[in-house]
Amino acid sequence: MEVNFENITTIGFDADDTLWVNETYFRDTEEKFAELLESYETKNKIDQELFKMEMKNLELYGYGIKGFVLSMIESALDLSNNKISQSTITEILKLGKKMIDHPVELLEGVEETLSQLQNRFRLIVMTKGDLLDQERKLERSGLSKYFHHVEVLSDKKEHNYKALLDHLNINVNEFLMIGNSLKSDVLPILNIGAKAIHIPFHTTWAHEMVSNDEIDQNGHLKLNEIKEILKYLN
Amino acid sequence: MEVNFENITTIGFDADDTLWVNETYFRDTEEKFAELLESYETKNKIDQELFKMEMKNLELYGYGIKGFVLSMIESALDLSNNKISQSTITEILKLGKKMIDHPVELLEGVEETLSQLQNRFRLIVMTKGDLLDQERKLERSGLSKYFHHVEVLSDKKEHNYKALLDHLNINVNEFLMIGNSLKSDVLPILNIGAKAIHIPFHTTWAHEMVSNDEIDQNGHLKLNEIKEILKYLN
Repeated sequence: MEVNFENITTIGFDADDTLWVNETYFRDTEEKFAELLESYETKNKIDQELFKMEMKNLELYGYGIKGFVLSMIESALDLSNNKISQSTITEILKLGKKMIDHPVELLEGVEETLSQLQNRFRLIVMTKGDLLDQERKLERSGLSKYFHHVEVLSDKKEHNYKALLDHLNINVNEFLMIGNSLKSDVLPILNIGAKAIHIPFHTTWAHEMVSNDEIDQNGHLKLNEIKEILKYLN
Repeated sequence: MEVNFENITTIGFDADDTLWVNETYFRDTEEKFAELLESYETKNKIDQELFKMEMKNLELYGYGIKGFVLSMIESALDLSNNKISQSTITEILKLGKKMIDHPVELLEGVEETLSQLQNRFRLIVMTKGDLLDQERKLERSGLSKYFHHVEVLSDKKEHNYKALLDHLNINVNEFLMIGNSLKSDVLPILNIGAKAIHIPFHTTWAHEMVSNDEIDQNGHLKLNEIKEILKYLN
């Protein structure tokens, strides 16, 4: 595929599952949540109901761990017909705190890649989720020094990106976004006329899945590892 | 007091309890929380323990309604020695959703003041708390059109303001902050060398209280109503 990155001045990096591991901890917590509720329902049903609850609450709670914990509690009450024990609620609160306080595990090649790009491009973290969580992860990651700054978006739709590029005075044809989610990091970026590189993570949250029909045919580069982007940006 | 705002190009407005009512809803929710727990403890003890819980969790949860709800649940379990009923937990979740979904009630004179300032200054909302909540409130308030953009800070300490002014290329001597909290909107701003106007709201969260000793003697203007700032900015 022909791709041309010669106008690029600014690169936006998604953070969760692009710079560091994230989805894995959500999956692990869902496993533990299902174990806590195993006397009430099958694992499959628990997974399904928790996901439905998250989607129902998404507009109110937005993305991030705190909303996820609130949805787990509501789901536990629902699934157990209000019989879930008080100590299980305490366990759910603890699962949430453990997620928030989890050490940051960088993905392979991230630091090497950023250090090679930092002098030639303006690098920005562009993530959705909880502001405090994302700032904390960036600080713990040791990657702060490579980034001009962090932008936390309440969502990653076209209008969110447009407003952000406007605010940062970045032309769409100067902007490249790199991330693991086709839905959040690639498709809206291509739709506003900027460039995108997709680097899939092995685990994708159901909410971030897109059907093949939605994938733009004439658009983005897909790579296996972050350091491969260096070949295209020199 | 002699104050000189002639270099000012950019005005930062705190949002909660400066542009619209906020603290009142937290106080109302605390009242309802105390009623839900009245069979276990006195109102005074419940208030104290909830506040302690919020402070204990602040580093992990940050500011905002979701963290407050999680702290209410943890506090209810604690105060009742794990005897709180499941339906009370559901009630607490509902209190939180009601807060998030509350209509926005503008403070007096806000719209008139912003409309008079918008063409002469760059106006920015600078708030701490939850990004999605704050964006939603701004949209519901109908005030978006007056602001260049919204900056949600994970905290409002000197280093947060410094990083933000750097990022926005704003000189400290061009910047004026307006807000209801001495601790968050006034003192750190004066300490970095920018200007501040304090407009107290009738209710202040205990966490935002400062002692008289911390109040800089030679620094800021204190006004009763937002529209009074127009007299100083012409």
